[in-house]
Amino acid sequence: MCTLYTKILKHKIRGDQLKLYGLNGQILRVDLSSGKISVEKPETNFYRRYFGGWGFIAYYLLKELKPGVDPLGSDNKLIFATGVITGSPVPGSGRSSVGAKSPLTGGFGAAETGGFWGVELKHAGFDAVIIEGKAEKPVYLWIHDGEAEIKSASHLWGKDTGESQAMIRKELGDDGIRVAQIGLAGENLVRYACVINDLRDAAGRTGMGAVMGSKKLKAIAVRGHNRVKTVDSEKLKELAKSVTDVFKHWRFPKLGTGGDMYDAYPEAGNLPTSNFRDGNFPHAKDISAQTIEKTIRARMEGCWGCPMQCKKVLKPINKPWTIDPQYGGPEYETLAAFGSNCGVSDLIAICKADELCKRYSLDTISTGCTIAFAMECFEKGLLTEEDTSGIKLNFGNSEAIVKMVEMIAKRQGIGDLLAEGSMRAAKKIGKGAQQFAIHVKGQEVPMHDPRAKRTLGLGYAVSPTGADHMHNFHDTGELDSIDWNDAKGLGILERPPLEEFGSDKVRILIYVTDLKILDNCLQMCHFLPYVFHQKTEIVNATTGWNCTDFELMKVGERVFNMARVFNLREGFTEKDDRLPDRFFRPQASGPISKGINPQQLETLKHVYYEMRGWDRQTGIPTRGKLAELDIAWVANELPM
Amino acid sequence: MCTLYTKILKHKIRGDQLKLYGLNGQILRVDLSSGKISVEKPETNFYRRYFGGWGFIAYYLLKELKPGVDPLGSDNKLIFATGVITGSPVPGSGRSSVGAKSPLTGGFGAAETGGFWGVELKHAGFDAVIIEGKAEKPVYLWIHDGEAEIKSASHLWGKDTGESQAMIRKELGDDGIRVAQIGLAGENLVRYACVINDLRDAAGRTGMGAVMGSKKLKAIAVRGHNRVKTVDSEKLKELAKSVTDVFKHWRFPKLGTGGDMYDAYPEAGNLPTSNFRDGNFPHAKDISAQTIEKTIRARMEGCWGCPMQCKKVLKPINKPWTIDPQYGGPEYETLAAFGSNCGVSDLIAICKADELCKRYSLDTISTGCTIAFAMECFEKGLLTEEDTSGIKLNFGNSEAIVKMVEMIAKRQGIGDLLAEGSMRAAKKIGKGAQQFAIHVKGQEVPMHDPRAKRTLGLGYAVSPTGADHMHNFHDTGELDSIDWNDAKGLGILERPPLEEFGSDKVRILIYVTDLKILDNCLQMCHFLPYVFHQKTEIVNATTGWNCTDFELMKVGERVFNMARVFNLREGFTEKDDRLPDRFFRPQASGPISKGINPQQLETLKHVYYEMRGWDRQTGIPTRGKLAELDIAWVANELPM
Repeated sequence: MCTLYTKILKHKIRGDQLKLYGLNGQILRVDLSSGKISVEKPETNFYRRYFGGWGFIAYYLLKELKPGVDPLGSDNKLIFATGVITGSPVPGSGRSSVGAKSPLTGGFGAAETGGFWGVELKHAGFDAVIIEGKAEKPVYLWIHDGEAEIKSASHLWGKDTGESQAMIRKELGDDGIRVAQIGLAGENLVRYACVINDLRDAAGRTGMGAVMGSKKLKAIAVRGHNRVKTVDSEKLKELAKSVTDVFKHWRFPKLGTGGDMYDAYPEAGNLPTSNFRDGNFPHAKDISAQTIEKTIRARMEGCWGCPMQCKKVLKPINKPWTIDPQYGGPEYETLAAFGSNCGVSDLIAICKADELCKRYSLDTISTGCTIAFAMECFEKGLLTEEDTSGIKLNFGNSEAIVKMVEMIAKRQGIGDLLAEGSMRAAKKIGKGAQQFAIHVKGQEVPMHDPRAKRTLGLGYAVSPTGADHMHNFHDTGELDSIDWNDAKGLGILERPPLEEFGSDKVRILIYVTDLKILDNCLQMCHFLPYVFHQKTEIVNATTGWNCTDFELMKVGERVFNMARVFNLREGFTEKDDRLPDRFFRPQASGPISKGINPQQLETLKHVYYEMRGWDRQTGIPTRGKLAELDIAWVANELPM
Repeated sequence: MCTLYTKILKHKIRGDQLKLYGLNGQILRVDLSSGKISVEKPETNFYRRYFGGWGFIAYYLLKELKPGVDPLGSDNKLIFATGVITGSPVPGSGRSSVGAKSPLTGGFGAAETGGFWGVELKHAGFDAVIIEGKAEKPVYLWIHDGEAEIKSASHLWGKDTGESQAMIRKELGDDGIRVAQIGLAGENLVRYACVINDLRDAAGRTGMGAVMGSKKLKAIAVRGHNRVKTVDSEKLKELAKSVTDVFKHWRFPKLGTGGDMYDAYPEAGNLPTSNFRDGNFPHAKDISAQTIEKTIRARMEGCWGCPMQCKKVLKPINKPWTIDPQYGGPEYETLAAFGSNCGVSDLIAICKADELCKRYSLDTISTGCTIAFAMECFEKGLLTEEDTSGIKLNFGNSEAIVKMVEMIAKRQGIGDLLAEGSMRAAKKIGKGAQQFAIHVKGQEVPMHDPRAKRTLGLGYAVSPTGADHMHNFHDTGELDSIDWNDAKGLGILERPPLEEFGSDKVRILIYVTDLKILDNCLQMCHFLPYVFHQKTEIVNATTGWNCTDFELMKVGERVFNMARVFNLREGFTEKDDRLPDRFFRPQASGPISKGINPQQLETLKHVYYEMRGWDRQTGIPTRGKLAELDIAWVANELPM
């Protein structure tokens, strides 16, 4: 056993750094079981067909995973992927994805993150890293300027992300090293553990940190000095200026996320409250970005190359909890998940829960939601103080949320149950607990109430990653996920009435989804106000390709279909495309007095399938559709 | 009766000339039965959804025609439509469409033409003209600078197009008037009569001239002085220069069409010979554009605003036939239809047949093909000299083709039978004549042998207008209808091998078709070597819209689906999407020693349906697909 371990430590590989414009043309493959590291150089058309991020993840999962593998077993693969424009000198290009079969959903797993790590990987000579197998003992991967080696992480195992990052930087002697890693939650295989970059940027959803933990991979440390070569830097400068001119007077970069909970969300009934039971949280303003700005915020920061600076950094806080500012500050999803959805208005407690999630590598949405689930169970007597080690797990108990995060990450007491996620925990608790588990396909619902945004609800239902707000259409009045002037460029000529929930909205959902999946492939931040064609221009000015907007929309559609087929291969059926029953009833309190009509949702789901060129009944993509999307090979992966 | 007639003559209307950028925002509607003229001002989104040309035609035919109307009855409507960029100051923008229910196919009828007429209509204040009803006595429509009036054409009826045009210009006192009109063939309801503009530009296919004749509408004379207002004339200048730089050294504008028959086509087996029986015409060079250039060509001319100048003008010819140069010169389709496909190598005879077709308003493809059909019937003894008024209708008889054109236009002798088109004539002749009628859905096959271009063959089979080479993919080696670098921008990343005939080719056919249908909507010439995105730029610089390439491809797809639904409503089924049996056998002589495999064609046809989001078996667009294309209303027109 020890032999293999030594071998792993010694294996080191150097890539050629075969540079294309915008890309390295190199993908690193690391087998942690054997310690083998290799470099693959795909054809240019591989890049142009799949574009990166979700595209690479979907490709490798479909091509290389056997159906039915254990997400936490050695047969799962974990893919870190940048995209075609990662590191291109324009705002919003600092992103990357992490993907694998999800231990939370059992289906397609992928999460995106901003920050610096992805660009550093590009600078280090690789476009993506595929992690296979499982190390015998904890290891980390060290990638630097075209070289890669596996190193022991025994001394890092069990450490907070902050400690671990400091130790890695120290032992490698470079403070500029970027570290993607897991904390205790990942090590302990919490099913919604995330991957944390630079302590503050989370690839949050679908449990990618648990997959990393299952492989005993503590971290991937990256350092590189080769800037991305682009074809037309003047054009890129012009695009950067143009988009900056648009957002520089916006409220958003001044506040970051969470400004809407001060004003728009409570009124719209979009602020999940008490485990999505209510839509009316009286303390919304107390936990808003505006209050943070006025009280505990030190400054704003941004991702690589982005002047938008939409990420909060807190002042040092010492009581009632010590909060380390190096872990950044809470986003809207976190504020709502630990705040309104747990009935908590104590901003410091929420910030502490956020800090702990980054320290331990936990997805704040699923963590907050699972705690809210437990709170409702507690309220209903399905869980008692006996179960909770004496903690009064009531809505509004701010100390409890902080304690729960600790216990989940460490799988202590009831934390061990909740670490399985709300769906599995509910099954174990029984006694009707399932009605309080607010998830789709096992993934907890983000902080947008589908009763307020019904089209988004349909988007939750059909998403391959379970409830996901990022590749979705936010269809309330003031809170649109689409610029209605830009929408015309998608052929959405009329804005359907707010109250409409019909095929016009389904069409918009599909187009917006494909556009956002495209973002997740080429790796563009959803927050930057580029018009669609400017993204195409960024791709072309970066790579020298002659892409059209049509080609790019087809990339989004292609990859979305691939993720769908992955799930079908894993046994998902149209029955899994559903919402929790709670959303079919009105909010107990709050402005939304009507639940979604389940028959209407079901009908529109089948309209959605047909609009996508899928079988109207089963939601299975037709072979023709897959061939039209230039992925005829994917049809072989369809269930018989 | 006379009252009505007088009323028609007096009715005159003035439009407001509500100008949008690129468009007038006005559509003229003329009811020839009542003499009522009106002006409609559609919403901007009508223009942006349907774009013009085919889009307008499909819209009005679906919305306003009752299913099953007689194409030559008063319930048919005839639509003359420009497009969003007609008259924009860039090369290739001088086009317009004519459409109606086709008397040749019984389905969707549409034909495109270059020249000057469409731009003149735009300058006169209208984007399209809808002709309804049927005049009591011959009339013509006079549209000039925002005004429109119906005038008597009794003195023009029976006249050649040349005479008629001269008389109209004289009586209206303006030599700058542009005239779209019919000659004898249109008047005599020859089912493949065309509409002739300026004596030389034909809206050739699907028998639109017969519809015009059935309405007793001799001509639409147009004159206007309002240039099209565009948003960004500097950008348009730049685009004009850019495309001109590409083609200025090409062979094509020097020769016009028909250069390939000198070299590439005979070798590829693509030159239809003796009614598509053979693929090897030994005299191909004698009837080529090169021979015309060296012998009888005076100069080249072009369409409105286009420096490409790809249209031949002949020197005056006096024997053995007098050929009037004002009728222009023959295109490739004409040279092959009257030449190789009739076994004729006499260039002067072909040019005379061409001149007569323009004089009488006949589609040269259907005319030549129908004569070739008759020649094979004659050879086989199914027609005799008794039937042909003593004409020896053998392949190669150059005098016979000239005589036949006359007889068809005038419906004299056997010309009356052949005026019905090859499908109907074959049915009357019986005795197996149908095997020699080379048509799809009643429309004669153009001069590209589907055995040489199998994907084009599939395109013939599924086209809503019957055999049509213009919105189709030409998939032989040197003769591509697609620029393979530009193709990447459609997401066609690899060029499938020439010999392949599979789903990759079907995908390309669909994308190229939609792109060309888009051309037929916005009205861009297929010959101009713009890359796709430049067309989007032209649209945006003309109109001020923010269209993307995605939106534009969807326009093409939308309108193609509308034409499909129109045919389904008229009773067409997937059984009508077929090729003549002749193409399933090898060429009798010629380089193609293998026919198309009918099972393979049938299989790929269903792949085509499914790729398009149509029912795989029936080829009926799903309601979901129509809704996705933003034409949910069209689903109501689907057969039950």
